[in-house]
Amino acid sequence: MSSKDITSFFRFESVGKKIADLETPTPVIDIDVVDRNLKRWQARCDKLGIANRPHIKTHKLVPLAKYQLALGAKGITVQKLGEAEVMADAGIRDMLLTFNVVGEHKLKRLADLAKRSDISVVADNEALLEGLGRAGVAAGRDIAVLVECDTGAKRNGVQSPEAAAALAKAIERTKGLSYGGLMTYAAPGQRRETEAFLVAARERAAEAGLATKVISTGGSPDMWKDEGLAVPTEYRAGTYIYFDRSLAERGTCTYEDCALNVLATVVSRPTDQRAMIDAGSKSLTSDLLGLQGYGVVHALGKAQIYATSEEHGFLDISNVAEKPRVGDLVRITPNHVCPVTNLFNRVVFVRGDEVLGAVKVDARGLVQ
Amino acid sequence: MSSKDITSFFRFESVGKKIADLETPTPVIDIDVVDRNLKRWQARCDKLGIANRPHIKTHKLVPLAKYQLALGAKGITVQKLGEAEVMADAGIRDMLLTFNVVGEHKLKRLADLAKRSDISVVADNEALLEGLGRAGVAAGRDIAVLVECDTGAKRNGVQSPEAAAALAKAIERTKGLSYGGLMTYAAPGQRRETEAFLVAARERAAEAGLATKVISTGGSPDMWKDEGLAVPTEYRAGTYIYFDRSLAERGTCTYEDCALNVLATVVSRPTDQRAMIDAGSKSLTSDLLGLQGYGVVHALGKAQIYATSEEHGFLDISNVAEKPRVGDLVRITPNHVCPVTNLFNRVVFVRGDEVLGAVKVDARGLVQ
Repeated sequence: MSSKDITSFFRFESVGKKIADLETPTPVIDIDVVDRNLKRWQARCDKLGIANRPHIKTHKLVPLAKYQLALGAKGITVQKLGEAEVMADAGIRDMLLTFNVVGEHKLKRLADLAKRSDISVVADNEALLEGLGRAGVAAGRDIAVLVECDTGAKRNGVQSPEAAAALAKAIERTKGLSYGGLMTYAAPGQRRETEAFLVAARERAAEAGLATKVISTGGSPDMWKDEGLAVPTEYRAGTYIYFDRSLAERGTCTYEDCALNVLATVVSRPTDQRAMIDAGSKSLTSDLLGLQGYGVVHALGKAQIYATSEEHGFLDISNVAEKPRVGDLVRITPNHVCPVTNLFNRVVFVRGDEVLGAVKVDARGLVQ
Repeated sequence: MSSKDITSFFRFESVGKKIADLETPTPVIDIDVVDRNLKRWQARCDKLGIANRPHIKTHKLVPLAKYQLALGAKGITVQKLGEAEVMADAGIRDMLLTFNVVGEHKLKRLADLAKRSDISVVADNEALLEGLGRAGVAAGRDIAVLVECDTGAKRNGVQSPEAAAALAKAIERTKGLSYGGLMTYAAPGQRRETEAFLVAARERAAEAGLATKVISTGGSPDMWKDEGLAVPTEYRAGTYIYFDRSLAERGTCTYEDCALNVLATVVSRPTDQRAMIDAGSKSLTSDLLGLQGYGVVHALGKAQIYATSEEHGFLDISNVAEKPRVGDLVRITPNHVCPVTNLFNRVVFVRGDEVLGAVKVDARGLVQ
């Protein structure tokens, strides 16, 4: 556990002292809520004896990655080389890139990263191994490759435990690579099926003489559920740092745990049913994640953004007793927080109504 | 009409010579298709005798805005102050900001812009006028304010022709402001209702002694339809520069007119039905616009991106005879092109299979 306060990890740019000083739309992030979310999850990982490897795709911020490590995270997870490069530049060494690296440019970048960090990667098919092996040879060290398993999420991943073991063997015999273990994203509610797959894959690998030291699972939705957590050795969660409406509506968190909200201004009130705000799809994204609307304003009885254009949100105020007026500020809890930070060059940190300052979103908009 | 070639407006950064040299995901924009789209629309505006005021929110690029002006556009449309500032920095003077300006920071920025450009703005309620008037006074000139009318799109806008005329009068009597005309976004298929509203509003304004010199309408979906175009004096279209899947499926354009496609790499082939590509919601957005899927790969029989995660697209290859392999490049026509360019720091221009180079997306990610 870090003895240093979370704010000491930041160098804020001044953008005024109060919420009312801010230009909108802007993400505002309550630093105390972030702190609480991070500490609570680290404490749970410590109790479970599982390594915490937070996914930084959600925040893309160097200071928060460093704070996660200071609190006890074993390393970080990144989803693209651009994110890994930014984090390596900041001195972070232990990274897992959970994305198949394909293409000559990217293999060269991976080799460069492998020289200056302990980056490990994933693979789910043999076609990747020749290139990854060359990157390892170029870096002068074996790159650990985890076998990505499709344990039910129907994303990437080998389709059976037998295929996982076969790929592990192929990795192990490729110059420049070493078998790093198993990796999956367990679809929400599918921990039991996932566990069965992982245990079988580990057994098949053992039969082939390969020890599976790391079993990496992930996902914020089921983070508090104990089922199926006896097998994984590490956990990748991303959204838990900020949480969002989708996780509040699932019951993974409360709305009070939602650290990031988008501050917007009411810019038009065409009717008594509709307020137009200056946050649209270029601020909130169009991610629905099964929800109705594109975000809610908690302070207005969860009034919904029922539609967006690119720079406008359409707020349903038909059931709001005290109608917002032009110029009023509102805070929107977005459906899905991860792509929201990706839309802004800067985000603002606050402590309640006090503005601490803005920081650049270090790892956004970079080439994959 | 410009005698200068479109490429002469650009200073490209080198990113290789061939498509296969590019890192993915990246938007690739065929410059000849852009050129054809722009010239075709300008010719139509010239023929109709309507001023062309293209909306630069789609491309956010200084060179393309300048080329649109060189081809004959009267001025440009911008959707936020940040876009206006970038264009003013590049020397563009005639701009219409189709967004209510609210808040002290923004009013100061508007005043600064009004000093160095001929920016005009919109308003749809009286609460805006005091601030806008102060900006005009600070700039030392009257800022023209167009009355935004809700003629059926149910976005911003006054709700009746009478309210439009009343607001026009209020604008005209506010120090620092002048009545600039009427502005609307005609919802697709609602040109007739829009025309009736605009004619009535113009009459009500005339009865109050106010001449309506500018009537500004917009929208790419109905751009080729003649109905209701006798009344507007200018047209704001944005998407027509690149077009996209939503407009191809509506019949506004063909897929050959879609100038911007997202180049992606197949990074995984978990099954014979599914190819995973390296373009997800952080590249394609989640905009559906009533369509199925998040984009199509034209070369694979319009194979659909049936799902996305943040950095992955899930391509349905079940009906594709020659299955794509890991490492293959694919070009995706996105559903909605405007928010796609907003996600990338750079876009790449091509001419067929020849890469011309990359340019920075000048006006993305800026404070509203």
